[in-house]
Amino acid sequence: MLIKLYDLAGAEDDCRFSPFCWQVKMALKHKGLNAEEIPWRFTEKEAIAFSGQGLVPVLVDDDKIVNDSWEIAHYLETTYAARPSLFNGNIGESGALFIKFWSAQAISPLIFRIILSDLFENLHEKDKAYFRESREKRLGMTLEEFATPNDETITALQTALSPLREVLERQPYLGGEQPYFGDYIAFGQFQWARAVSPIQLIAKDDAIYNWRDRLLDAFDGYARNASGYVV
Amino acid sequence: MLIKLYDLAGAEDDCRFSPFCWQVKMALKHKGLNAEEIPWRFTEKEAIAFSGQGLVPVLVDDDKIVNDSWEIAHYLETTYAARPSLFNGNIGESGALFIKFWSAQAISPLIFRIILSDLFENLHEKDKAYFRESREKRLGMTLEEFATPNDETITALQTALSPLREVLERQPYLGGEQPYFGDYIAFGQFQWARAVSPIQLIAKDDAIYNWRDRLLDAFDGYARNASGYVV
Repeated sequence: MLIKLYDLAGAEDDCRFSPFCWQVKMALKHKGLNAEEIPWRFTEKEAIAFSGQGLVPVLVDDDKIVNDSWEIAHYLETTYAARPSLFNGNIGESGALFIKFWSAQAISPLIFRIILSDLFENLHEKDKAYFRESREKRLGMTLEEFATPNDETITALQTALSPLREVLERQPYLGGEQPYFGDYIAFGQFQWARAVSPIQLIAKDDAIYNWRDRLLDAFDGYARNASGYVV
Repeated sequence: MLIKLYDLAGAEDDCRFSPFCWQVKMALKHKGLNAEEIPWRFTEKEAIAFSGQGLVPVLVDDDKIVNDSWEIAHYLETTYAARPSLFNGNIGESGALFIKFWSAQAISPLIFRIILSDLFENLHEKDKAYFRESREKRLGMTLEEFATPNDETITALQTALSPLREVLERQPYLGGEQPYFGDYIAFGQFQWARAVSPIQLIAKDDAIYNWRDRLLDAFDGYARNASGYVV
C-alpha cells in the first residue's frame, strides 16, 4: 500500500513549503520510497486527528502512523533498514541531531524574517487568521514587526550559514560524498523559502548554492520540479 | 619515544589555555597516548620553526611533525587506527568538521569577548605586544573595545550554545554514549576560558555544565587537574 504523507500546502495545492515536510520527502526518496503527498492546511486539524496531534508531517505506512520529521526519519531508518541509510549509524544520528537544533536556532529565525511576508501571501485564506494568531503569540510581536527582509537580515544569514558553507567548501554534502539526513534538514530550510519567496538567499558562487543545486537535481529533479521560485 | 606536543602557555608554565591544544590533548588521551607537553609562547617562533610555520599545536611523533589540531587528529586517527576511534568513520568526521566551524563562528568570538581581559592578564610578558598587535589587526579594534564581559554577551553565548545544549539534554556526548573528536573541539572552548578566567559561562543546572564535568573527569581527571578556575 502506498505510503501517505500529509504535507503542508498554501493557497495552491502545489505550494508545499513546510521545511519539516521537505526533510521527510527527501528522506523517503533517499530510501527509494514513493508516497502520496496529501495537501493539508494548518486549520484542517480534523483531517489528521487520527495521529493524536495537530501538526504535519504525518506519515501513514500501512497500519503505522508517525508524526514529527525526526521521528519519521527514525521510523524509516528502522523499518527500511536494508535500504540506503539516512544516518549511517549512531554517530551520524548525533551529527544530524546537532544540525536539527542548529538549523532551528541559528538559521530558521533569519529565513523566517526574510520570507515571512511572501509566506503569508501564499497561505490559504482559511489559514491566515490561525497563522497570524499562533505566530504572533510565539514571536511576541506582529508579523509585520518581525518581517525584516532587508540587507541586514540577509547579511546576518550569511554569517550564520558560515559553518554549513565551510563544510561544503571541503566536501559535496554534510554527510561527506553522499547526502544524509542532516543534509535534508538544512535543505528543508531553503525549500521553505524557495516555495514562497523570490528573494535570493544565497549567491550563485556560494558553495551552499551548488550544494542546494545538487539536492534540487537529486532523485530525478524531485525537489527542483516542485512549485517554487528560481532563486 | 614519547610524543612531544608544543602547547601554548601563559606567564606561568602550567597555564595552558589554547583551545586548539586542548582538542589535541584530549584526542591523545582518547587514543591512550601520553605526550610531553612542552610549554610554548606566541613569540617563540624559532622553537617550532622546524614545523615550517609559527603556531601551536605542533606534534612530534618520532620522525613525524604535524601542526594544526584538525590535521593532528587525522594523523592520530590514521597512525593509531587500532586504538579507540576519534571520528567513528567518515560520517563522524563530517560531523566533527561542522562542530569545528560552528565553534569558530558562533561560540569562540563570544567567549573571547568575555575572557579577553583575563586572558591578556595571564599572558607571558614577552607575548603581550605580539598578542595585542596581531589580535587588534584581526579584530579591527583595540582589545579594550572588543572585551565585553557583560551580561549581554553571556546571554548571547547562552543562545549561541543552544544546539549543543539541546543535543546534550538528549544524550551524554555529541558523539552519543561516548565522546568523539567533536566533543573535544567544543570542550576546548571551555578549557580556554577555565584556564584564565573566573567568569562562569554556564549555569550549574545546564546540560552543558554536566557534559563539561564528565569531560573534566575523563582520563582520571586529566583536564580537571590542569591549572584553572573552578567555574
